[in-house]
Amino acid sequence: MIRSHSAGALRAEHAGDTVILAGWVARRRDHGGVIFIDLRDASGVAQAVFREGEMAERAHRLRAEFCVKITGEVAIRPEGNENPELPTGAIEVTVTELTVLSESAPLPFPLDEHSDVGEEVRLKHRYLDLRRAGPAAALRLRGNANRIARRVLDERDFIEVETPTLTQSTPEGARDFLVPARLRPGSWYALPQSPQLFKQLLMVAGLERYYQIARCYRDEDFRADRQPEFTQLDIEASFVTEDDVIELGEAVVAALWAELADHQVPRPIPRMTYADAMARYGSDKPDLRYAVELTDLTEYFAETSFRVFQNPYVGAVVMPGGASQARRQLDAWQEWAKQRGARGLAYVLIGEDGSVDERGPVVKNLSETERDGLAKAVGAGPGDCIFFAAGLAGDARALLGAARDEIARRCGLVDENAWSFVWVVDAPVFERVYDDKGNEIGWTAVHHPFTSPNEDWVDRFEESPGEALAHAYDIVCNGNEIGGGSIRIHRSDVQERVFRVLGMDEAEQRQKFGFLLDAFAYGPPPHGGIAFGWDRICMLLAHADSLRDVIAFPKSGGGYDPLTGAPSPITADQRKEAGVDAKPAPPAPAKPAE
Amino acid sequence: MIRSHSAGALRAEHAGDTVILAGWVARRRDHGGVIFIDLRDASGVAQAVFREGEMAERAHRLRAEFCVKITGEVAIRPEGNENPELPTGAIEVTVTELTVLSESAPLPFPLDEHSDVGEEVRLKHRYLDLRRAGPAAALRLRGNANRIARRVLDERDFIEVETPTLTQSTPEGARDFLVPARLRPGSWYALPQSPQLFKQLLMVAGLERYYQIARCYRDEDFRADRQPEFTQLDIEASFVTEDDVIELGEAVVAALWAELADHQVPRPIPRMTYADAMARYGSDKPDLRYAVELTDLTEYFAETSFRVFQNPYVGAVVMPGGASQARRQLDAWQEWAKQRGARGLAYVLIGEDGSVDERGPVVKNLSETERDGLAKAVGAGPGDCIFFAAGLAGDARALLGAARDEIARRCGLVDENAWSFVWVVDAPVFERVYDDKGNEIGWTAVHHPFTSPNEDWVDRFEESPGEALAHAYDIVCNGNEIGGGSIRIHRSDVQERVFRVLGMDEAEQRQKFGFLLDAFAYGPPPHGGIAFGWDRICMLLAHADSLRDVIAFPKSGGGYDPLTGAPSPITADQRKEAGVDAKPAPPAPAKPAE
Repeated sequence: MIRSHSAGALRAEHAGDTVILAGWVARRRDHGGVIFIDLRDASGVAQAVFREGEMAERAHRLRAEFCVKITGEVAIRPEGNENPELPTGAIEVTVTELTVLSESAPLPFPLDEHSDVGEEVRLKHRYLDLRRAGPAAALRLRGNANRIARRVLDERDFIEVETPTLTQSTPEGARDFLVPARLRPGSWYALPQSPQLFKQLLMVAGLERYYQIARCYRDEDFRADRQPEFTQLDIEASFVTEDDVIELGEAVVAALWAELADHQVPRPIPRMTYADAMARYGSDKPDLRYAVELTDLTEYFAETSFRVFQNPYVGAVVMPGGASQARRQLDAWQEWAKQRGARGLAYVLIGEDGSVDERGPVVKNLSETERDGLAKAVGAGPGDCIFFAAGLAGDARALLGAARDEIARRCGLVDENAWSFVWVVDAPVFERVYDDKGNEIGWTAVHHPFTSPNEDWVDRFEESPGEALAHAYDIVCNGNEIGGGSIRIHRSDVQERVFRVLGMDEAEQRQKFGFLLDAFAYGPPPHGGIAFGWDRICMLLAHADSLRDVIAFPKSGGGYDPLTGAPSPITADQRKEAGVDAKPAPPAPAKPAE
Repeated sequence: MIRSHSAGALRAEHAGDTVILAGWVARRRDHGGVIFIDLRDASGVAQAVFREGEMAERAHRLRAEFCVKITGEVAIRPEGNENPELPTGAIEVTVTELTVLSESAPLPFPLDEHSDVGEEVRLKHRYLDLRRAGPAAALRLRGNANRIARRVLDERDFIEVETPTLTQSTPEGARDFLVPARLRPGSWYALPQSPQLFKQLLMVAGLERYYQIARCYRDEDFRADRQPEFTQLDIEASFVTEDDVIELGEAVVAALWAELADHQVPRPIPRMTYADAMARYGSDKPDLRYAVELTDLTEYFAETSFRVFQNPYVGAVVMPGGASQARRQLDAWQEWAKQRGARGLAYVLIGEDGSVDERGPVVKNLSETERDGLAKAVGAGPGDCIFFAAGLAGDARALLGAARDEIARRCGLVDENAWSFVWVVDAPVFERVYDDKGNEIGWTAVHHPFTSPNEDWVDRFEESPGEALAHAYDIVCNGNEIGGGSIRIHRSDVQERVFRVLGMDEAEQRQKFGFLLDAFAYGPPPHGGIAFGWDRICMLLAHADSLRDVIAFPKSGGGYDPLTGAPSPITADQRKEAGVDAKPAPPAPAKPAE
């Protein structure tokens, strides 16, 4: 090393030592001929002092973010100059030699923590952004998260295996990224949406316990906080039950939160059925940091004459104190609902005396009985606002669930220091697919098509696909789904039956998943697993606002990389060479391997 | 878990315990109504005995690789039936319950260790291949190698960082794999050939110590043992010297070999200059398990009248006992040389009396002096064969170096149990590029264009690019380059000068590496690193013959995956959607990130 010490490690006990430091000029202050610089390296900051004539003169030319090497003597700071907020605040280094290792141009943005420079500029100069303490700490936290998770899994004899990323296109609900195969012109690889099929093949291979921190790829339309490449902690095990995987998942989560967030996760983490989560919270990833719940009013309004409530489902959620909202705030809720695709958000206000207020468009449509019993039915108190949604249960609950989150935000019900974990279990295997006109046109998998129906359903899910429940479990933290998994199908007959419900005929099954069905012909073990959304977990642990904060070099909008300029046009030669425009050869027999 | 014990963990002390096991039927033997099966799981094998009428009858229907669950009582094997070669050989399990978890079709190949089934078939059914002890052990070893390397690096405060794999095309000597960007039709990402530029940017970012077990991609023409995707252990650090990186590399290597090969690597590992390696071994990755060396005879033949030896370089390598080769063996050497692009391999045989033999086409062209001094000049003894190569030093030495390896193989000089490590240092920065006709047309980087010339050359490498030496170091194990690295250029002026020698004008520099040069404007630290070829290291540690043996799901010839059938044609819809045929939009200003 070209330095003898880390700047951040210097303490009073080093007084008198001659040290060599190397790092960056974080700040420079001139005090009447004496120059102070804060010298920053990865370990922290130490104060360097240039006292003498020539040294001070040379130091005078230093600018922010110059990279320098200094030699000097550690000295106790003069009394009154200590900085108790800095670990090195007891000392300073009196510089006797200075080497400028490299200079810096004026910075495109200041590197202090609270700079509100635009994200695009930060990402374009990510190598400067990461010199700031916060962003650097987020990357370190992520490295530590990897280490902690691997330790838990290593201790339990899980084996890390790398699975291929140039593979076959096997649609799992999103689009694949494609890669032309130059050596087989006209043929393409796909980047994997997850290692799902490979990890199941590893179970067929008898590996029994697999994990990988795996890069995955989904070519989705850009939504905020989506990255075209993302990372999951991917786990699979054989001969396990749902409880085994849940216990393992809790061990990983508990270790992460204990070591990185100083939070002891109470275990076992509570479980809630999918049906319950939808009914009570209108979400399959309920945020349980706040107690607000949905009330099912379908029965209550069974005899209503109000046309809007004559629907398969009517539900409500209460906004505490919401009756005091101004008319334009209540109008804003209508806008909010419309942006979510609803027609609006019906509401009723409760007066300070606990009775239903006459204001609002809904109340006049209710019968006296409906009005009188309403506050009690939904648990609303004086001054509250009751929001309603009616329609198909799924849509209406989703709207109320979103309203619930919005209420919590607006009413300050979210304890930002709280951690709330819950497993959502017993999800359905299938859900309806509708066409543009709202007609039912088939079924899709709620999780993925390899998820096993549970024992009650495995032999008869075709009878009532919408009711069949899966051996699936999602773990939710503060309203974020941070992981999910299932016991998988391991019998090829069951897998084929599930494919059929999903509308795949035998030819399509063979073409897309033939190799999996082939593998299941050779004594596949029962198996199951889980995948954690690693970017999201790191984001939560880092108290970051965006996935981009815990990714070293993230993409911005539309999958664009402001730093390197990727993606970019290719040359005609590259295009030709890659075989992009070649007609694929007819299916060839496999070539022998060398 | 649906079992209570691992089969391989059962010992005499379990006698009397009722256990539940789950695994595969590795072997079934009928002994007069009593059925024995070897039940295999990931931990090993235990013998299960089906003694009673009904159990034996049901066990009779078991076939190889059925997946089963059994309940039974552990019993000490009857005297004389112990198998001391099996860890569980003292016991057997008397089965009382049997559940067939899944059946197996007849196997496409037997799963015993010495089956010589073709590799294509094994890879197509890799999930069966990996049930064999050897292939499974190779994967486990690889997982352990990851763990060991990470431990060494974690202990030294290196931070694991994931770098992007959908990135900008930045040619590093091989072709990039390309990925169409649907959201920017006509633009493409490239898969990275290595994280080189990103790790350097992390150093500019002040991270100081980075590592990653990184997937890399090179679209090269298929040679034996090349995979389109491969893995490297990628390391970079700031403020380090060449010695620091070498010491770190040795720590990683020593830990791997100590724990996985039970071999203490003597440290420090010897270093040899590139010039020395080429002169003495004709290779930049000399296999030092055998002592055979090249002899430079350029001076010796300075005055020769033999036209073939009138060349810038003449060298020789001795094959011990090679004079006893039959004529057709000597002819086979000519063929061998021609396959390597040489005209042939001149030779002289030494008789049993130590004098030059009259046989062979070369000897008659030599003067008496040349003949008489030859054996001594090359250190050949009675019965040896001397092979010659003459021409440009590089070509001739490469041929002799290859002959050296071939001699060692044929003469049994390779100690297969030996481990020989060496650092090759002081490599040139540049080497000549020739066109098809052999004309010099420029320079290419011996390592990569980010490698720093050493202190002697950094300010003047343009004067004599072919002589300039780099701060580069490659680590070689048994003739395999297992890692390589360098101190990098961190000054943009030096980087631009290197790019110029490589024939890149300013526009091309900006276009390809503008973001790196931009980064170097902001106080870049001196830095350096190393990358280990992880597949190769695991192959050596596993005593495997092929990289494919240490890859879970390798590609075979031409980048084809016999298991999934990748790559394959895509549909017209996929093609259209991916924007493959779109004209790229004119360079757009970056979109703001959400």
